Amino acid sequence: MDKRVGVLGGGQLGRMLVEAANLLEIRVNFLDAANSSAKQVSNHAGHIEGSFKDAAAIRQLAANSDVVTVEIEHVDTYMLEEISATTPVQPDYKTIRMIQDKFAQKEHLIKHHVPVAKSIALEKPTVGELEKVSATLGLPLMLKSRREAYDGRGNFPVKSKADFQPAIDALGKNGELYGEQWAQFKMELAVMVVKTKYQTYSFPTVETIHENSICKLVYAPARGVSAEINQKAQDLAKKAVSCFWGRGVFGVEMFLLQDGELLINEIAPRPHNSGHYTIEACPVSQYEAHLRAILDLPLHEEDLQLREPAIMLNILGGDKPDSHLQFAREALKQRRTKIHLYGKGEARKGRKMGHITVTAPTMREAEAIIAPMIAYSTPGKYRLAADPSPGPSADPAPVAVIMGSDSDLPVLLPGLALLRTLQIAYTTRIVSAHRTPNDMATFASSAAANGHKVIIAAAGGAAHLPGMTAAHTPLPVIGVPVKPSIGDGMDSLLSIVNMPRGVPVAAVSVNNSVNAALLAARILGAGDEGVRKRVEGYMAQAEKEVREKDERLRGVGAEEYVERFLGKK
Amino acid sequence: MDKRVGVLGGGQLGRMLVEAANLLEIRVNFLDAANSSAKQVSNHAGHIEGSFKDAAAIRQLAANSDVVTVEIEHVDTYMLEEISATTPVQPDYKTIRMIQDKFAQKEHLIKHHVPVAKSIALEKPTVGELEKVSATLGLPLMLKSRREAYDGRGNFPVKSKADFQPAIDALGKNGELYGEQWAQFKMELAVMVVKTKYQTYSFPTVETIHENSICKLVYAPARGVSAEINQKAQDLAKKAVSCFWGRGVFGVEMFLLQDGELLINEIAPRPHNSGHYTIEACPVSQYEAHLRAILDLPLHEEDLQLREPAIMLNILGGDKPDSHLQFAREALKQRRTKIHLYGKGEARKGRKMGHITVTAPTMREAEAIIAPMIAYSTPGKYRLAADPSPGPSADPAPVAVIMGSDSDLPVLLPGLALLRTLQIAYTTRIVSAHRTPNDMATFASSAAANGHKVIIAAAGGAAHLPGMTAAHTPLPVIGVPVKPSIGDGMDSLLSIVNMPRGVPVAAVSVNNSVNAALLAARILGAGDEGVRKRVEGYMAQAEKEVREKDERLRGVGAEEYVERFLGKK
Repeated sequence: MDKRVGVLGGGQLGRMLVEAANLLEIRVNFLDAANSSAKQVSNHAGHIEGSFKDAAAIRQLAANSDVVTVEIEHVDTYMLEEISATTPVQPDYKTIRMIQDKFAQKEHLIKHHVPVAKSIALEKPTVGELEKVSATLGLPLMLKSRREAYDGRGNFPVKSKADFQPAIDALGKNGELYGEQWAQFKMELAVMVVKTKYQTYSFPTVETIHENSICKLVYAPARGVSAEINQKAQDLAKKAVSCFWGRGVFGVEMFLLQDGELLINEIAPRPHNSGHYTIEACPVSQYEAHLRAILDLPLHEEDLQLREPAIMLNILGGDKPDSHLQFAREALKQRRTKIHLYGKGEARKGRKMGHITVTAPTMREAEAIIAPMIAYSTPGKYRLAADPSPGPSADPAPVAVIMGSDSDLPVLLPGLALLRTLQIAYTTRIVSAHRTPNDMATFASSAAANGHKVIIAAAGGAAHLPGMTAAHTPLPVIGVPVKPSIGDGMDSLLSIVNMPRGVPVAAVSVNNSVNAALLAARILGAGDEGVRKRVEGYMAQAEKEVREKDERLRGVGAEEYVERFLGKK
Repeated sequence: MDKRVGVLGGGQLGRMLVEAANLLEIRVNFLDAANSSAKQVSNHAGHIEGSFKDAAAIRQLAANSDVVTVEIEHVDTYMLEEISATTPVQPDYKTIRMIQDKFAQKEHLIKHHVPVAKSIALEKPTVGELEKVSATLGLPLMLKSRREAYDGRGNFPVKSKADFQPAIDALGKNGELYGEQWAQFKMELAVMVVKTKYQTYSFPTVETIHENSICKLVYAPARGVSAEINQKAQDLAKKAVSCFWGRGVFGVEMFLLQDGELLINEIAPRPHNSGHYTIEACPVSQYEAHLRAILDLPLHEEDLQLREPAIMLNILGGDKPDSHLQFAREALKQRRTKIHLYGKGEARKGRKMGHITVTAPTMREAEAIIAPMIAYSTPGKYRLAADPSPGPSADPAPVAVIMGSDSDLPVLLPGLALLRTLQIAYTTRIVSAHRTPNDMATFASSAAANGHKVIIAAAGGAAHLPGMTAAHTPLPVIGVPVKPSIGDGMDSLLSIVNMPRGVPVAAVSVNNSVNAALLAARILGAGDEGVRKRVEGYMAQAEKEVREKDERLRGVGAEEYVERFLGKK
């Protein structure tokens, strides 16, 4: 491709940007120190050595480039404004200037009716001002520097009045401050948004987990988030980005509150840590998307879809200069693990030195693979799928087992036991088609969005639950006819199997929850090699058992067999 | 990682190798010209400028490196032998020396009982010798140079005696020649094999399509290849590589003959064009696998599995120096398309300038996406999924619809029509549980391996087909009870639904092939968002139709409705 891209800053974001650019023969010129992370993987004479705050160097970069962008927002936007006259800058310098000042960024979003955490600026960085602000916002609150704050720097949690002086001592020297109301969030979400010349697209909604205000883990997609909240997060992220000017990718961080409301936390006008996972997990990464956006190259909504669930874990500098390399060596021992080291040399503690991405066919499997790496990085700090500690659960159970009445439960037990044997997660619910028809409809119509793949529905007599559930969901529904106290269960069977054309139910025989569970396993196995293999194992085991019985029968004869093994005379 | 890798050659294979190495902070030193493809993405002072056939340069490379490898086999193996005394060379120089001489390579494989195409060396490069060889091998035959042959150079198809003189004229100057029996192959397959210190692993079996002896397309996995042949290809590739010495990845190219036999074509002791797809399609690429193998870093069988079906299309130099860039720009217009350009500058016609990889949830979708790019690169040259021209079909139909008798066919027609409406491919078969029990067992037991995901089985009376099929396959089986000429079909229904515990069948109501088709769609939709959306569309349409009828009923009243719209009085 024939356009040259100039980038202010050559850290890890620049490095991953140029890794994408190299594939497209897009020349990228970095302005940064000589052996910076990005320059290590881009060998040509067009780079400029110097600070990305140096005016002459920025002018030189612009002169060598067809479009200028940034990998960090803490740049001299007046220089960007100057060079904009001759070289396009993406996103617009006004966007970077507005976002640089985190308080101004918030005010701007409020003006455009985008919900953000309530914030008040301190007129001066003094304890007295902080006290005034805390009277309105309450305690705890987060004291923040308006500028130059990232990766936890510039944030100070103020939990009580005793923190006032330490907070001012810590941040006062940074200049202007503001207080932000403490967000009692259920989880943190993030969406990477791509603004092109014509369209605004978004990558999936992900879940971010921070430690000491530094992003540590990213789960794509966000776990346990309903379709409705996911859509809301997507819409909100696009709306927030649409308030700004110019093209490129934007990282939008949000709080999901306990009541389901979403607040924007902050926006980055560039590729973002919460989008690293896209390199392996999406057809086009955030880096390539940024290049395509600023160079007006084609991009498609589908390019940003998730190919597989993914988890990203940051590799931070540890106690020793090479702790991060030791960590990377440990991570290499895990399957399906992609390691990205940034070439930053010796580490400072807490500095981002690299990251790990695990992709797998299911989030549950990705969690299992990354668990030892999380444990290695911070023993005991993080919840896993198997860990019932606070936070949303892992991806939902693929099988939902529902029944019209608790009296159906004994019939279902053998099937549930078999699902456990086959290592298939399930959830059980009592929803009656006749007594809680609205709950039934709500459950069924949201089952697919909630991540279930198959529903097993048990009912007896006028057994409407399987068919009514099928009427409300596009998922396959397996009906288990339960034998009622009166009759042989033919009423249950026919109520379930004789569905009208257009609404299918998969019926099994009366009380046969085992076959319902096996059918669910076979259905999941159609798309999951692991489950398929376990079904085959079950079939092989059943074959073996019947052959053993046959051998026994040949050994002892029919009469003795009945007496000894069937307990009958 | 602390070991330095020295590489003879810095072309596109080296470039993709160092792209993988950069992520792991593995220092790679290239010996090649100054601005070679690989050096462009690796900016450090350790590279050596010069020819990878220059002795002094090779010694210098070895002195700077902890392990030496090659990205091309046409190197001075005597130099590799010399440096082996002080620096490990992977794979072993003996391997590279043996493989360099394609005729010696074949003789070596034969000695190890690995099947290869029959070949005879010409004692001298003369027409007389060629005539002698053709008397044994028959015509056509392929005349090949023993050395320095790749990407079609050094091959000459000899179709008749008239080609003798031109063939000798073309290849005689290359030195030693051999004739190879013309392989009447059904398709060409390839497997990338990884030899580590302890294990031999393999990537999936892929299908390669060549044009003028240059690899043009790679389909991963190979289309329409049975599980049995796939396994045979995997075993053969590993066996062939095990005849050689040292560690690293090897590209194994094979012919699949009409009778199902496999012959080794040739082996490359390095990453290979047929493995480019692994960058996007596998957790660990062939390049990273090579690094892990030669540096004794961990590797897992699962790292080499396919994440999604993939198709790779080479971008060759065209008529103009920038034709390949124009091609890349066209390709960018397609969704899910990853472009790799190699930074080779101006193109020579036919030179490999880059490649394109498309990954998608199904091979059919990947084929649809890449079709316009194939058409752009060589109009009318390649078969597509929809194209019934020779060659194996695309990935198999997800739904197999089977019946015990052709008399069941009319009942199935509405279901088949619905599958077409929902854009779900199916295949139809007559296999009787009672009259062709062996065919039924064979079909059912190979259905999963043949790529089917769901089976719909229709049967009437003593309707054993669905249950017997379920007994032979781990796939979900949907049973359609067909109403026999005598009775109401309850016999069919109960024969299908009342399966013993352990072998499930999903029963629908009598003659309801529509619901069977919908159930199949819902099952596929559990793992395929596109199908799920079409099922939802169908449900919305059905809802609309009933509401229209309701409106009509409210408009005209019950009596007129029956008369006008139900055709009854």
